[in-house]
Amino acid sequence: MNHTYDDEDFFGRYAGMPRSREGLTAAGEWRQLKPLFPPLKGRSVLDLGCGYGWHCRFCEDQGAGRVLGIDSSRKMIEEARRRSQGRDIEYRVCPVEEYEFPENTWDLVVSNLALHYIEDLDSVFEKVYRALKEGGTFLFNIEHPTFTAGVNQDWIYTEKGEPAHWPVDSYFSPGKRSALFLGCQVEKYHHTLTQILMGLLNRGFVLEAVEEAQPPEEMMGIPGMEQEMRRPMMLLVKAGRLNGI
Amino acid sequence: MNHTYDDEDFFGRYAGMPRSREGLTAAGEWRQLKPLFPPLKGRSVLDLGCGYGWHCRFCEDQGAGRVLGIDSSRKMIEEARRRSQGRDIEYRVCPVEEYEFPENTWDLVVSNLALHYIEDLDSVFEKVYRALKEGGTFLFNIEHPTFTAGVNQDWIYTEKGEPAHWPVDSYFSPGKRSALFLGCQVEKYHHTLTQILMGLLNRGFVLEAVEEAQPPEEMMGIPGMEQEMRRPMMLLVKAGRLNGI
Repeated sequence: MNHTYDDEDFFGRYAGMPRSREGLTAAGEWRQLKPLFPPLKGRSVLDLGCGYGWHCRFCEDQGAGRVLGIDSSRKMIEEARRRSQGRDIEYRVCPVEEYEFPENTWDLVVSNLALHYIEDLDSVFEKVYRALKEGGTFLFNIEHPTFTAGVNQDWIYTEKGEPAHWPVDSYFSPGKRSALFLGCQVEKYHHTLTQILMGLLNRGFVLEAVEEAQPPEEMMGIPGMEQEMRRPMMLLVKAGRLNGI
Repeated sequence: MNHTYDDEDFFGRYAGMPRSREGLTAAGEWRQLKPLFPPLKGRSVLDLGCGYGWHCRFCEDQGAGRVLGIDSSRKMIEEARRRSQGRDIEYRVCPVEEYEFPENTWDLVVSNLALHYIEDLDSVFEKVYRALKEGGTFLFNIEHPTFTAGVNQDWIYTEKGEPAHWPVDSYFSPGKRSALFLGCQVEKYHHTLTQILMGLLNRGFVLEAVEEAQPPEEMMGIPGMEQEMRRPMMLLVKAGRLNGI
């Protein structure tokens, strides 16, 4: 597990990111992720790695009947609770690997930018499948395999210090990668596209959407955003547990 | 269209490749592609960009009742016919874009390493869907988006001339790319993963397999093969046209 998110300095820097200050609308991928949510009126939602709880609150706003957000970081859950006062959302300090995944319980399992901290995706896929009701949806956003296979997960720079290209290596050697994120060394895991998609298909999921997050036109003025057109950073996947299977 | 394959010198060099001399078993991806074929006994098969006809002959060997291979290169079709003498396989000089795709005709449409020469994949997906019978399969192997987004589709080399890493750039700018292949400048097209998979899903296909070709253990002794572990080169996709849809 990754406890960087409980580090005081890291947490402070995380709090300064646009997506932490302004929420979903400041996240480049939100315009693509939002339409992938199924109708939520009266539905039950589990958020794996909920962070500040932005997606939990979105789901409640859409009419979800029960919402549970789990996160391994105590500080994240405290922040999520603080921001969700007066709402009927349950938050729990719990790593994804330790959650019990009760059978046939959730209509939607959502996970935004958390699964690349998990080594054994197959195990998560199996547990999510079991915990979903028939007809349920698993919607997640994970760092893109081209991104996690990046050398030091950083650009190669020109002599002037400008990004020259994105270097890929050791693609078919999945596993631990170390990357600098907000001044901290963060450990994450590279999974190939095959592992992600065949992992879902082999578990019985139906693939409903596979989209790479591409910055929207109206955000292209934000400094650095033009780099996001040069290599894919996030992969959005919507997978269904079919009725009657 | 790409007429490089009709160039005398290029064709000669192509003939010298292991996969041209020895066929399917010399192709690193074959061990993954072969199990993705549906049962073919009595079935009809269309091969888009059939080249020497290796896959057409494989399908006939599996009991296919009708096999048609098309290719834009006259020389390829001549070679395919020469190698298929005494067999009941039809070959036609015809670019994929110009084939008529008669409705409800084929049980399997297969395409090996040809679709990255096509600019408008959506149009091909639409035509293939229409030309497939219900319950039919579209199985293809296309150059991987990480490969086609490679800068000049070549490695960055160390001072010693060894591959340092695979450079990715302009990922979200799909379109024409020029690459050196067997001493010729070949024009091909970069498509994002989103374009490939959402193109299929939006057309109504069901994704049955999405696999990156990874060299098998027993081929790792072949010079240069270890580089194939460093970045994905080919994407195998199996998509179905469901019964009753």
